[in-house]
Amino acid sequence: MSWLDEVRWNADGLVPVITRDVADGAVLMMAWMNRDALQATVSKGEAVYWSRSRKKLWHKGAESGHFQRVQRMALDCDGDTLLLDVEQVGGIACHTGRRSCFYRQYQDGAWVEISE
Amino acid sequence: MSWLDEVRWNADGLVPVITRDVADGAVLMMAWMNRDALQATVSKGEAVYWSRSRKKLWHKGAESGHFQRVQRMALDCDGDTLLLDVEQVGGIACHTGRRSCFYRQYQDGAWVEISE
Repeated sequence: MSWLDEVRWNADGLVPVITRDVADGAVLMMAWMNRDALQATVSKGEAVYWSRSRKKLWHKGAESGHFQRVQRMALDCDGDTLLLDVEQVGGIACHTGRRSCFYRQYQDGAWVEISE
Repeated sequence: MSWLDEVRWNADGLVPVITRDVADGAVLMMAWMNRDALQATVSKGEAVYWSRSRKKLWHKGAESGHFQRVQRMALDCDGDTLLLDVEQVGGIACHTGRRSCFYRQYQDGAWVEISE
């Protein structure tokens, strides 16, 4: 069985991917891959996601220059989530220009923007 | 607008949740919440997920004792993923008895079990 078949793709053929900065383990973003994206990620050594809005492969950084060089990749116990450790080129993963997409924190019934 | 309405629930009314150990930032698991689960998580101060297989609320630790005391909760830029920082009671998040669900690492075309 191929390592690709051990991934439990969902009904849309996708798997969620958590991406961390290998430098300090900070969670940068969550995105999705299909089979082609995961294969491309491994062959390029750079994160390639599946854009659900644009419905096409999304080589992260191709437009922004903020490539993600993959250092490690892990699969969870039931095979339905991936965890990527990357070197984040430019130090920015979020399309808002922030390092991480998770910049809103819950505080007393509201999501409050935090700085890193 | 309620903070619950700022979450972009998917077609099934769910949002993926990345859960980390607040002690060192290790990613422990990925699970799902619906609106009720997220409300229960906030009111209890402990992680309550939605079990997609059992189709019911899943108060993590209710059976195993491995509760997750929520310390911080963040929402990503497009509102469709949550990040939880928890105190992991018993130091075990995975149903296999491991600390983290992500114990299989990609190596040369295979997923290889790693020890922490």
